[in-house]
Formats: sequence, structure tokens, C-alpha cells
Amino acid sequence: MKLLSSVQSFGGLQNQYEHVSATLNCTMQFSVFLPPQASDGHKVPVAYWLSGLTCTDQNFATKAGAQRVAAELGVAIVMPDTSPRGKGVPDDADKAYDFGLGAGFYVDATQTPWNAHYRMYSYIVEELPALLEANLPVSNKRAVFGHSMGGHGALTIALNNPGRYVSVSAFSPIVSPSQCPWGQKALGLYLGEDQAAWQRHDTVALIRAGAPQMPMLVDQGLADNFLAAQLKTELLEKALEETGYPAEIRYHPGYDHSYYFIATFIEDHLRFHARHLQ
Amino acid sequence: MKLLSSVQSFGGLQNQYEHVSATLNCTMQFSVFLPPQASDGHKVPVAYWLSGLTCTDQNFATKAGAQRVAAELGVAIVMPDTSPRGKGVPDDADKAYDFGLGAGFYVDATQTPWNAHYRMYSYIVEELPALLEANLPVSNKRAVFGHSMGGHGALTIALNNPGRYVSVSAFSPIVSPSQCPWGQKALGLYLGEDQAAWQRHDTVALIRAGAPQMPMLVDQGLADNFLAAQLKTELLEKALEETGYPAEIRYHPGYDHSYYFIATFIEDHLRFHARHLQ
Repeated sequence: MKLLSSVQSFGGLQNQYEHVSATLNCTMQFSVFLPPQASDGHKVPVAYWLSGLTCTDQNFATKAGAQRVAAELGVAIVMPDTSPRGKGVPDDADKAYDFGLGAGFYVDATQTPWNAHYRMYSYIVEELPALLEANLPVSNKRAVFGHSMGGHGALTIALNNPGRYVSVSAFSPIVSPSQCPWGQKALGLYLGEDQAAWQRHDTVALIRAGAPQMPMLVDQGLADNFLAAQLKTELLEKALEETGYPAEIRYHPGYDHSYYFIATFIEDHLRFHARHLQ
Repeated sequence: MKLLSSVQSFGGLQNQYEHVSATLNCTMQFSVFLPPQASDGHKVPVAYWLSGLTCTDQNFATKAGAQRVAAELGVAIVMPDTSPRGKGVPDDADKAYDFGLGAGFYVDATQTPWNAHYRMYSYIVEELPALLEANLPVSNKRAVFGHSMGGHGALTIALNNPGRYVSVSAFSPIVSPSQCPWGQKALGLYLGEDQAAWQRHDTVALIRAGAPQMPMLVDQGLADNFLAAQLKTELLEKALEETGYPAEIRYHPGYDHSYYFIATFIEDHLRFHARHLQ
């Protein structure tokens, strides 16, 4: 991995790297915030942030205001891109924002032509942590969180890999891609029309199928334009209630789907994860 | 003035407006953060943030992380654009980033063709506060701060109008445009080659000419690529020392010219201004 830039922030370092991903079969960029506690080579725990549709590794880095609290808590934050990129990586036929580039949905595609590159699930779960734990002062104590499509990614990845993550949280997640237009389009194209293959990438389905309990926090704005048609938080709420799964869902009147919402509550998420990471 | 968007942030509102500016002879956009304390129509004090080269009203709004502390302190933040905009507004002949659009330098141009629109000094000092104090729950207790070209704008505007601002601060300001390439180009084109007209838009010259004392804080990163050739903080430091002007200049090892630097220390600036605004 190659360091592209390194900028000081709250006594830590906001770094951007590039590497050739064997999983995604392309060159990828990602960002990492290393808190000051990592400066002497001391290994710090890591929270993996998964971004939403259209984002790159930069959105959370520049807009969430997370570095202040991460620096205080001694937690690194890893910010991957949201899809494979570059020459030869196919995109949505209409270049739509909700599929293809910027919209990997954190699954391993099984359908052509997507399966040659779109393997964000394995990239996030396996390749990236292995790379970082070998090359940076970060430990294998991991949390995962994200926003919208990335909230879906965080929840499904955590529920499928409870031994690899100590806690999970999400802002405005797509809680059941099987039951919303964004998810139906993406999972249909990446995984095929047989919905049996979708179930392990659907938070509500995983909870109903008896996913193991782990610390879970979800924040949802009530002025979010995507809540009714795409996010459908009530489906998760119902699944949690009916299975007795002890997650916390918080609704916030007046807040929308933007990074202004994320910035407002990111401190709570970082403190939540830090309690479990330490 | 017309409200373009309104997003909830830290219990307050991050708003963007549009209005026809008589001073600038064009339609302008600006952003305002209204803290929760303004929600019942109670008038809150205001800090005017002046941005640097290439910026619009959005950079500080999305990247500085200022809303959290402003919401706590009950201070509104006004974020103007950095130049006139739109059809008929002339730009730099080579569309360079350091003159014309995005580079108003907070002066009233006297030279053609710039003097038909480039009057950011009067816009910031007079038109915008009058508009906001008549239409929003903000008081006439004002502070002014900014970054780079906007740090220059904040310092010169405050020193020329001590009765209108209770305090001033700057990140990485151009302290003496008369003595650096950015400033020489801009002031030469906007104000003409007679440097006598530049002096009231040059912080170092104003201090040396006996500008009245007011609370002043300046932060400068020591890894800032523009420090040696453009910002030249040492000229301000020397002028302050030699005139006995009691401002605070803080140097920060490792910090660059970016919003990561601003975000790291913005809380200090807001608390500094709040002490004087209240």
C-alpha cells in the first residue's frame, strides 16, 4: 500500500492510501484516521466506516467531524471506497447513482459482468483488515458502522461475522434491501433473481433467522426523504421486537439523510464503539 | 432573501439563502447556522466567517465542524461567498484561482471592469449584516473570522471597523497582501498600482499605522505550504511586537493549510469570540 497524503488533524493523522486489491481486481483508495495514541507504534482498535451511495473514501473524512472524538478515545477509523473503481470496472448501464460505481452494496457479486470486480463484502471483511493489521498500528479489535447503503453493509457484515466485530452501528441504514427499490435492483443484478441468495445480505432477514446478539445502535432521522420508500426502519424495529434482539434504535425528529445528521450524532457512535473496543 | 435549503444540525438549522445584492450587482448565495437558542425568535450574536480562495458558502458549512460548539454557545455563524458570481461578473483572464471568481479579497474595487461587481468589503461590512439583522433572529453583536484570504478579510475588516466587531480571529491569514504574490496581483488589479490605496487592506500596515486594539487571535500551521511565500505570519508578529499590540499568535507544528487544521482549532475560536460576544 502506498501513502498518497497525510494531514494532521486533532493531533492524529488523516491519511489516504492506494493499493492493488486482489479481491476487487483493481486499484483502490481508502482513508484512515490514526489517533495520536497510535503515533508510537502502539496498536489501537479500529472502527470501519462504510459509506453510502455515491460516496468515496473522502465524504466521511471531510464532513463527519469524527476525528475529534476518535483522537480523544484512541480509536482509528478506516474509510474504504464504496465500490471497485477504474478502467475495466463495469458501471450501471444508465450510469445511475444506485448501482455499479459508488454502489457496491457490500456483497460479493455472483453474476456476470459484476463478479469480476464487485466483491466489496470480502474486501471489507477480509482483505482490508488483513492489509491494515499487517501495515499500520491497528489491532484486530474491530467495530463497524456506516450510513445508508453503508449502514446496511455494517449491519449485515457484523451479523455475518460476530467474532470479527465487537459492536455495530448505523445511521439511516437500508434495513431490508429485499424490500426496497434500491436493494431489489442491486441484489438482483449482483446476486441474481433467486432471493434465497439475498437473505444473508438483509439485516431484517438475518435478525429473523436468529443472528447472534451483539451491541447494536441505529440512528434514524424523521425528516429523511428516503425513510418511507427505501430505509424502512420500522421493519427492523419489528424484527428486533419479535425476536427479542436487544438493539437500540433512536429516531430523531427534524433530521434528514445528510452528513449534518451524521455529524450531530457521530460522537455517540464513537463512544458506543469505544466502550466495546476497550 | 429566499431560503434555498434548511437542514437540522446539532439542534440548530444550517440554512442556505439567495438574495439580489445591490452592492455586488448580482445574485448571491450565503449560508447561516442558527443555533437552537435562536429558535424562539430570541436574537443571538453572530460570527461572520470569511472563506479563502476558491471557496463558496459551502466549504466551512460542511468541513469545519463548527456547528457543535456554536450550538452550545448560542452563536450564529454567517458564511458568505468569496466573490460576486453569475452572468456578467468578469473573471480572471486566465481563470486563475487567485483572482476574480472565488477571490474577491474583501476590497471594493476601484478599477474597471472589476468595480461594477467586486465590492466584497462593503458587502460584508454593510449590506449583509443589515439584511440579516432585519430578517433573521441575529443581533448586532458581531465577531469576524476567516481563513487565508478570508483571514486577511477578517483582520482588515475588523481593524477598519472596530465599533462594528467585538473580536477578530484568523486561521492562516495573508497578513500583508502588499508583500506577497497573491495580494500584489489582486490589490493591483482591484485597486490599481498606487500602493497607497492598498494600505487599509493590509493588516500589517494597519497595525503599524496605529489601528485600535481589539481582541485578536491568529492560528498558523507550521506545515502550511503557503506560509513562507504568501502568508508570512512573521511580518504580523513583528508588527505586533513593535507596536505593543496585544494579539495572540499561535503556531502549530505539523498542521497544514486545510480544513483539517481549521476543524482542529475552530472550537478555540468560537469560545474566544463567545467570551466577547456575551
